[in-house]
Amino acid sequence: MLLPQRVTLVDVGPRDGLQNESQPVDTSHKVALVHQLQAAGLREIEVTSFVSPKWVPQMADNAAVMAGIARPAGVRHSVLTPNLKGLEAALPSRPDEIVVFAAATEAFSQRNINCSIEESFERFRPVVAEAHRHGIKVRGAISCAVGCPYQGDVSADEVERVVRLMKEAGVDHCGVADTIGVGTPRKVQAAMERALKHYPVAEVSGHFHDTYGQALANVYACLEVGIHTFDASVGGLGGCPYAKGATGNVATEDVLYMLNGLGIETGIDIERLVDAAAGISRALGRPVSSRVGKALLARRERAAA
Amino acid sequence: MLLPQRVTLVDVGPRDGLQNESQPVDTSHKVALVHQLQAAGLREIEVTSFVSPKWVPQMADNAAVMAGIARPAGVRHSVLTPNLKGLEAALPSRPDEIVVFAAATEAFSQRNINCSIEESFERFRPVVAEAHRHGIKVRGAISCAVGCPYQGDVSADEVERVVRLMKEAGVDHCGVADTIGVGTPRKVQAAMERALKHYPVAEVSGHFHDTYGQALANVYACLEVGIHTFDASVGGLGGCPYAKGATGNVATEDVLYMLNGLGIETGIDIERLVDAAAGISRALGRPVSSRVGKALLARRERAAA
Repeated sequence: MLLPQRVTLVDVGPRDGLQNESQPVDTSHKVALVHQLQAAGLREIEVTSFVSPKWVPQMADNAAVMAGIARPAGVRHSVLTPNLKGLEAALPSRPDEIVVFAAATEAFSQRNINCSIEESFERFRPVVAEAHRHGIKVRGAISCAVGCPYQGDVSADEVERVVRLMKEAGVDHCGVADTIGVGTPRKVQAAMERALKHYPVAEVSGHFHDTYGQALANVYACLEVGIHTFDASVGGLGGCPYAKGATGNVATEDVLYMLNGLGIETGIDIERLVDAAAGISRALGRPVSSRVGKALLARRERAAA
Repeated sequence: MLLPQRVTLVDVGPRDGLQNESQPVDTSHKVALVHQLQAAGLREIEVTSFVSPKWVPQMADNAAVMAGIARPAGVRHSVLTPNLKGLEAALPSRPDEIVVFAAATEAFSQRNINCSIEESFERFRPVVAEAHRHGIKVRGAISCAVGCPYQGDVSADEVERVVRLMKEAGVDHCGVADTIGVGTPRKVQAAMERALKHYPVAEVSGHFHDTYGQALANVYACLEVGIHTFDASVGGLGGCPYAKGATGNVATEDVLYMLNGLGIETGIDIERLVDAAAGISRALGRPVSSRVGKALLARRERAAA
């Protein structure tokens, strides 16, 4: 089975990672993190979200972060904009891409954003139209695509229903997210295959949390069905607020290590990526939690000893 | 691609895990751990090693542990016996299986056991013969089969050389070990394919450390080439003494979670396995470190709240 020759990693650490910190993180640390990611070779970065600071105080400095970062050619900066108000607030920051999301299950939709799946699409259809009017690409994320904390198992049919709604709404890219990290390789492949029925492979991505340690196996399984775009979070930042004990997104450096071993190109330098993980961990006052981060930092210590 | 319908997990936590503890663990805790593993449904357990207590004081109570454990029919208890002296010391304990090992690289062989690969085989050829004379099965482990801390990369040819030596020495089972956890799926498959040239698939197993977080992806890749026996360590016990910052063996519960998700039978109950992880972690005075252990224990806490 041939694997993709090249993979794009989208670092969602500054947004999906840091929005789960109990204490808001200094704007300067966020800007420094984005710069370190760019220096490591990341070309897609989810920078912040434009949501009410009442709900997500961690992202209240969204415009300041966007204004503070360098915007070199070739790097795409995306922001989460769940509704029209968010998009309008985001526009002056000139995001390259916006992210909208819907849940794969009614239970999660109701409990997370307080509306049905169909209502969530009604809410973001105008967001898609307005973004396109400004020439901004729209990435859609389907949360709980392999498991839901309220419903339990999620079927591929349920995923495909939302994929189809995404397509009909004009969303350009379809991200399939295992929000609570319960997926295993074959279930993930089944969900991906439904997305691939409606989107070209270049516009389908995987987003895995490592709660049950399955994320890398799931990424590998996705590579086998041709998926070549993945979200990941430097240092494994973040967590799922709906599940105590849940870990964050799969660490970008853990995914990168596997891709390097598989001979797949990414354009990312693993040592500089670990610098970024170490930098933000230092700012947060805790050790790097990713396996690769820990192992490579320990290797550096040994080399320096 | 069809995956195996059934997988055998060999829990090596009591030996490979606990021998890396800086403080020897009470014999009673070891016995309790073996009993908890048996209660969870484990049918193969690596219990202890018979090596000089001067070198491995953690396993000085080997005979006491073997004498202390219940030996129900259907459960295989193995012990590590690197030389004839070890085997002779082990025989009164009636192990079902003994384990011998050799390195895939000369550099590791010299630094780890102070002899060449060929010399290590000279040392254990009489062990194999003597074990067979007592009707005891011999499992061989090839350490550093995908990477070596001294040499770096390890080629499939180097692995096959040792596989062939194992076969010629009459070793019944060939375990392929990524001792320092540096392997990625395709490298691991390549090593496995060399073992499969000389041993039937039922007598080849994988042993992965999770130092770089790659272990589950590697197990999945092995399933794809038909491998259906894996070592793992409850609670992710253990570490590699040759690499600071290295984590232990892949956690049995992390592997089991993936196998359950893939619909593969093991006969093991994940909740009782997490009980075993929690039990030994409590005895060691630290929290469970495996992802699945943490996630399932957190789920229990929520359910109890």
